[in-house]
Amino acid sequence: MNQPYSSALLENAVNEFAKLPGIGRKTALRLVLHLLRQEELSVENFGNAIIKLRKEIKYCHVCHNISDSDTCSLCSDPNRDDSIICVVENIKEVMVIENTHQFKGRYHVLGGVISPMDGIGPSDLEIDSLVKRVSEGGIQEIILALSATMEGDTTNFYIFRKLAPHNIKISILARGVSVGDELEYTDEITLGRSIINRMPFNETFKP
Amino acid sequence: MNQPYSSALLENAVNEFAKLPGIGRKTALRLVLHLLRQEELSVENFGNAIIKLRKEIKYCHVCHNISDSDTCSLCSDPNRDDSIICVVENIKEVMVIENTHQFKGRYHVLGGVISPMDGIGPSDLEIDSLVKRVSEGGIQEIILALSATMEGDTTNFYIFRKLAPHNIKISILARGVSVGDELEYTDEITLGRSIINRMPFNETFKP
Repeated sequence: MNQPYSSALLENAVNEFAKLPGIGRKTALRLVLHLLRQEELSVENFGNAIIKLRKEIKYCHVCHNISDSDTCSLCSDPNRDDSIICVVENIKEVMVIENTHQFKGRYHVLGGVISPMDGIGPSDLEIDSLVKRVSEGGIQEIILALSATMEGDTTNFYIFRKLAPHNIKISILARGVSVGDELEYTDEITLGRSIINRMPFNETFKP
Repeated sequence: MNQPYSSALLENAVNEFAKLPGIGRKTALRLVLHLLRQEELSVENFGNAIIKLRKEIKYCHVCHNISDSDTCSLCSDPNRDDSIICVVENIKEVMVIENTHQFKGRYHVLGGVISPMDGIGPSDLEIDSLVKRVSEGGIQEIILALSATMEGDTTNFYIFRKLAPHNIKISILARGVSVGDELEYTDEITLGRSIINRMPFNETFKP
């Protein structure tokens, strides 16, 4: 749809918003008109927050998580366990796992998974730096917390092979029926695996 | 959901995005992470486009449409008909009507409709300036193109009363079955009105 904007400023702002993923031109226009109704100062804060973020953001030199300083707050926290590293795809997964409050070790952000279809090979990911962290010693367990997809499984296997010489425990997240799922609607592969990997009933009471 | 962001910059940007209508914290995070992957220059353009828009935008002093100059391009276009004014709620409706290519007159943007529930009375809208435009002469017809809601109808009636002394033609958009609608799913009020306002079949061929 051709939008005969009466203002080049408006058109420019709409174009910029419409570049965002999942934001079409209609939504972009709605958002821009919303901003027009806000105080000038609050719109300025919005624009500057984005510019400042992109300009000043750093990545932790240890785990590659997003950070305001050279070492992120999770890597510099003295109360976390140094002997266990949770390997995740992106910083989003760090947040998701932190929200569970079930993990008190360190993280390692790969920056994605191996995906030949998207042209992402092992060298595009932070795998070498993970191997380096492990070879420096002190680490007893690696938890591979990648997506349960083919790409995730491929990456799991690649990292497993790379870390094999180091004689540490390597685990992956449990696969099974999601909590709250009705069995009738659970897919066959998940259900099949959860039968194979069935666990003693009394172990389900573990904290 | 509590999000333990590892960066205050990130948290700030997410907070700003989450203020936009229809954008929750999850979507805000997705958009911010997208921006982080973009070139620094393009993110700067995005932020500045918004700030510049809010700072430099003007409203046309004739029709109150959004504009880069004091008089908008629609009001200053010499090829448009000065004798007919289409009254709309907001600048969005100007765009929608312009897209139909069926109207070549001028516009008048009210800035909303009368809505006592939202505390919007006639004095909050650009009704007085519309009456002034009409009283200055040269206008033969006013098209009321407001929403077909109770608030729209109330506003139509209020403007109709205000303009009654001026002896000009006042029309509203045709109400009826939408083009492409199946009759089975058309609501009763619309269907009822479209029977009352039925039109000669040969008139439907008009351009």
